[in-house]
Amino acid sequence: MINRLTIYGVGLIGGSLARALKAAGACGEIVGYGRSVAPLQRALELGVIDRYETDPGAAVRGSEVVLLGVPVGAVETVLHELRPHLGSDTIITDVGSTKGSVVAAAETVFGALPPRFIPGHPIAGTEQSGVEASFAELFRQRRVILTPTAQSDPAALATIRWMWQQTGAEVSEMSVAHHDEVLAATSHLPHLLAFTLVDTLARLEDHDDIFRFAAGGFRDFTRIASSSPQMWHDICLNNREALLKMVGRFSAELATLAAAIERGDGEAIRQTFERAKAARDSYCETHINQ
Amino acid sequence: MINRLTIYGVGLIGGSLARALKAAGACGEIVGYGRSVAPLQRALELGVIDRYETDPGAAVRGSEVVLLGVPVGAVETVLHELRPHLGSDTIITDVGSTKGSVVAAAETVFGALPPRFIPGHPIAGTEQSGVEASFAELFRQRRVILTPTAQSDPAALATIRWMWQQTGAEVSEMSVAHHDEVLAATSHLPHLLAFTLVDTLARLEDHDDIFRFAAGGFRDFTRIASSSPQMWHDICLNNREALLKMVGRFSAELATLAAAIERGDGEAIRQTFERAKAARDSYCETHINQ
Repeated sequence: MINRLTIYGVGLIGGSLARALKAAGACGEIVGYGRSVAPLQRALELGVIDRYETDPGAAVRGSEVVLLGVPVGAVETVLHELRPHLGSDTIITDVGSTKGSVVAAAETVFGALPPRFIPGHPIAGTEQSGVEASFAELFRQRRVILTPTAQSDPAALATIRWMWQQTGAEVSEMSVAHHDEVLAATSHLPHLLAFTLVDTLARLEDHDDIFRFAAGGFRDFTRIASSSPQMWHDICLNNREALLKMVGRFSAELATLAAAIERGDGEAIRQTFERAKAARDSYCETHINQ
Repeated sequence: MINRLTIYGVGLIGGSLARALKAAGACGEIVGYGRSVAPLQRALELGVIDRYETDPGAAVRGSEVVLLGVPVGAVETVLHELRPHLGSDTIITDVGSTKGSVVAAAETVFGALPPRFIPGHPIAGTEQSGVEASFAELFRQRRVILTPTAQSDPAALATIRWMWQQTGAEVSEMSVAHHDEVLAATSHLPHLLAFTLVDTLARLEDHDDIFRFAAGGFRDFTRIASSSPQMWHDICLNNREALLKMVGRFSAELATLAAAIERGDGEAIRQTFERAKAARDSYCETHINQ
């Protein structure tokens, strides 16, 4: 049981975590904190949090865990703000999609990653944002990655692991660098491609006609292009190296495939498509509940 | 009422059309024909067709409409095979995703596009294929594009338009060239990107780990990479010019965005993402039933 949890940024992720922990009876009190009052007031009305504070000291006082539910670009500023008010035994964790940048932000603010700062990332979400979109089941059968370091406090790690397990999530651990590479491939690159595709089409002269004749496959394929521009702006800038490496690999393969189409090399095209279909079908069989 | 319809290739599209026309009482008899007997036998067992034939003459004899439900790469061969057996008043139509190549195939076989050949394309489908995946509602509230030419027979055009309307589809007409450009943008390019992304990831050394941590967004984004490799191979080779033009535009925009990420140009990144999100949200509001 976590006696008191402070959530900085009660949006889709923070709000869903609060709902899930309440549903599981895993948390004594949940305190909301953030830059603007309106969403906190809304979270209170929805019963997602027990109270909110507008002063950072009041927000984190007596809290066992402080969770940063803010875009990764805001983590450093937020840590600066909270630092004077954090107790020596407060556990800090976050939900950011990039972990190298969060660790670097903590090192900038604290001089080194504090042993009780356990970086985390729930691999869950929708293209929606805000507390209105939150729901208790968001993390059920989803994966949560924690990226502790050699200096991490084992008890703090155990608490954060336990917290996520209460939401029905499967908790894994990996290194910061590996996390950022894996997410660049499976999440950051796909989002970049979806945003780029929709913008490319929107810039065409006859884009009204173009969108009119788009089918269901297009709707699914571009769903993630409806995600928060600010959040994805932050992610792109905060996982630059791993993301650009993946963009490079993707662009090279796309160029190879375009060259095969240009010279009419049916065999090369078919082989690529067959490999891709086999990989995607096998992924779906293995991770059907993911 | 269409007295008799012959479907060459009773798969997802041909099978769903047959089911929809039967449900609407819009067709007297539906005859299946194709390269192999097994799927035709299966279609008969499922009640999708009334009978099947293994001889092309028997298959098209007395049919008011012959529908080609084959991959676009097979259209020319199939037309060669059927040509000697077609009556002078038989209407021919197809369901291929590329129309320029289908018209060219007909010109090769017949010397010119026959007035009773009405090229068509239902913008519907799933990543599944085969008659087992067919269902009567596939075309409901979906669009069907017909690309008649100045030489097209108005009565034949009216019959094909009427046929698709019986399935609940909304029928549009446009030029062959415009169809191929629109589809390159909304369908062929997205499929190419999905196949390329999955293959790029499958080629990474730690691809098991990579796929293990993919989330729901990835599943949606890559769904179309589970489509038929043969069919998409045909489409890529048969809409080469329009597709490569779109690949070029997309690649240029991706390179621009990657350069913005590299130099940390947050404003350029945000603007691109915001334009894309606005276009995608507005597309979904307008075409929610598409």
